[in-house]
Amino acid sequence: MNFTISKQAFGNALAIVGHAVSSSSPQPYLRGIYIEASGNELVLTGSNADISIQKKVIADDENKLNIVEEGSILMEASYLNEIVKKLDADIISVEIIDGSLTRFAGSEAVFKINGMNTNDYPKIDFSKPMSSISMPASLLLEIIDQTTFAASTKETKPVLTGVNFHLADNVLKCTATDSYRLAKKTLDFKSDADFNITIPSKSLNEVRSTMLADAENIEIAQNDKKAQFWSEDMVLQTRLLDGGYPETDRLIPSEFTQKLTINRNDLIHAIDRTIFIKTDNITVDRLILSADELVLTNKSQEIGESTERLNGKYEGEPIDISFTGPYVMEACKVLHGDTVNVNFTGYMKPIIITCDDDPSVLHLILPVRTYN
Amino acid sequence: MNFTISKQAFGNALAIVGHAVSSSSPQPYLRGIYIEASGNELVLTGSNADISIQKKVIADDENKLNIVEEGSILMEASYLNEIVKKLDADIISVEIIDGSLTRFAGSEAVFKINGMNTNDYPKIDFSKPMSSISMPASLLLEIIDQTTFAASTKETKPVLTGVNFHLADNVLKCTATDSYRLAKKTLDFKSDADFNITIPSKSLNEVRSTMLADAENIEIAQNDKKAQFWSEDMVLQTRLLDGGYPETDRLIPSEFTQKLTINRNDLIHAIDRTIFIKTDNITVDRLILSADELVLTNKSQEIGESTERLNGKYEGEPIDISFTGPYVMEACKVLHGDTVNVNFTGYMKPIIITCDDDPSVLHLILPVRTYN
Repeated sequence: MNFTISKQAFGNALAIVGHAVSSSSPQPYLRGIYIEASGNELVLTGSNADISIQKKVIADDENKLNIVEEGSILMEASYLNEIVKKLDADIISVEIIDGSLTRFAGSEAVFKINGMNTNDYPKIDFSKPMSSISMPASLLLEIIDQTTFAASTKETKPVLTGVNFHLADNVLKCTATDSYRLAKKTLDFKSDADFNITIPSKSLNEVRSTMLADAENIEIAQNDKKAQFWSEDMVLQTRLLDGGYPETDRLIPSEFTQKLTINRNDLIHAIDRTIFIKTDNITVDRLILSADELVLTNKSQEIGESTERLNGKYEGEPIDISFTGPYVMEACKVLHGDTVNVNFTGYMKPIIITCDDDPSVLHLILPVRTYN
Repeated sequence: MNFTISKQAFGNALAIVGHAVSSSSPQPYLRGIYIEASGNELVLTGSNADISIQKKVIADDENKLNIVEEGSILMEASYLNEIVKKLDADIISVEIIDGSLTRFAGSEAVFKINGMNTNDYPKIDFSKPMSSISMPASLLLEIIDQTTFAASTKETKPVLTGVNFHLADNVLKCTATDSYRLAKKTLDFKSDADFNITIPSKSLNEVRSTMLADAENIEIAQNDKKAQFWSEDMVLQTRLLDGGYPETDRLIPSEFTQKLTINRNDLIHAIDRTIFIKTDNITVDRLILSADELVLTNKSQEIGESTERLNGKYEGEPIDISFTGPYVMEACKVLHGDTVNVNFTGYMKPIIITCDDDPSVLHLILPVRTYN
């Protein structure tokens, strides 16, 4: 193998593929990036137990890729990153000089680094499943931002650590819940495909950081084993979470008895001010709402209390309801619009947060029982 | 106690004093900030085992301080910071309402927070020792930047975790060493004072972050127990490190047999490129220098090797010398000038790094024995 390439283009490709590398894995090859040069393209692959990323660099005027001799290497990602980041030239050359010993050269600086045996690298099946849908990268970004935060971070119910994508009858529902709160984005989505898969949140966040900024469109292909996210020059493949995703639609009330309409940022800031007031390490905020007065309060035996009068519009009977402050704050943060609706159906009944400017999204938060 | 103050001025003062607060201390009062309001000033105090900081806020048009009633509170620093950072007004009011229960109010938001008993706060002796010197804040910043990095981070010889300040015969010597490298800044300093004290590096770094950006001049007062750094409106007091500081002058050769003159950034970058090539977790770089060729190289059995031809001027017999790369890099980084001199006195003899544009500073680095 022997090629030259723009340092920046090579560095970018390594950084993207590096997202799938387990830098602390005891398996050396999982700490490595596999690079194959053939024809007029370089294919870089990184993989760990959850995701695999393959990125192509096709020779063009910008990346200045020139393949002199085809071949492949497998090398520790951290060495590749260090060398390519710091080499003293804009165009660098990469050449196998003996077995897996690889020479990297810039202007004056030359490195001869030990690679690994390419046969050690697992054969990763990147074949594309038949069933796929396509959407703008900006829409996928919105789905990821508006749902993943509500997924569970505990491994007790693994399926809840992901986001459920359910496509049927031209409706796509994306749902995340940790059983205390739920985020759901529902979209009209014309497609022959139908599926019901749960994708790990971590994988979705890697999709977000590796491909959404640069791509126009993302194709999502899936079967019951894996999902793939394709852009023009890369694919990120993730395992799916096993187990049936809970049926959540029936948990969501459709009629409400009380409704608070309030400026989104005002509510975020009011809750944020109370975050440090914790009881048993949880910030429990309390809304006391009536036609006369809207009050957000928090009381902790140890720390003290806060009270804040809110400006907003309230409809319905008075209510006094407590909830985990950060849950409501995080839900409000991902909505797009100046005003949010906080809907109630009674004491100890789910709180539903919606936004008229962004009707595709709904957040459900379970209230907390308090004894003061 | 009852006062109003600009949120920003109060927040800044709390942040500064917070540098001396041990937020994870099991002693509640060490997690606290003591605030005293009297006359037209607020005095804030924070303290831990190593340093104590006292900061005055004297009423003026900018801080809008208005003391309605004198008094004092002692309160968890983290609560104060959260409240003052997030309150919903530019001017906030602080008032004791019952014992140590304190009311903080902005516009709509009101907090009633439990303080601690002010009698629990230790009496800190901020009395100023007789012996003191004064210097521009910019010079103290330079001393701190050019020495602290070379101090030891290991507690095996506690006195080496500090910087020794030795003033005698109108010469101030500031020295730090971890026994493998040494940084020394020597200044002509007209003063009647003479002292030989070792100040913890950590304390100096706190001086750097709390007071040097805003002050013109710093007065350093000291006795054999403590040192104090005074600016117009604050004092940082630190314990000293016990034990005689090693006599280092005799370790520093004054005549050299070989000298490499090289662009400072070129040398930094060349070493930086080799940082990832480690043997037993240490980056050992090797300079092979002669009139014909200047080469920086590094070889690790496991990772591979690097070679780089350097541009520079070399005088003296050829030399082949190995050293801990980061030590030379860090020494070069704190020098002010385009060009550095790397001076040698032979194989396994100390390397001395100086800079013609900045003759007050000298760095010594012990070479490393290698067997390849």
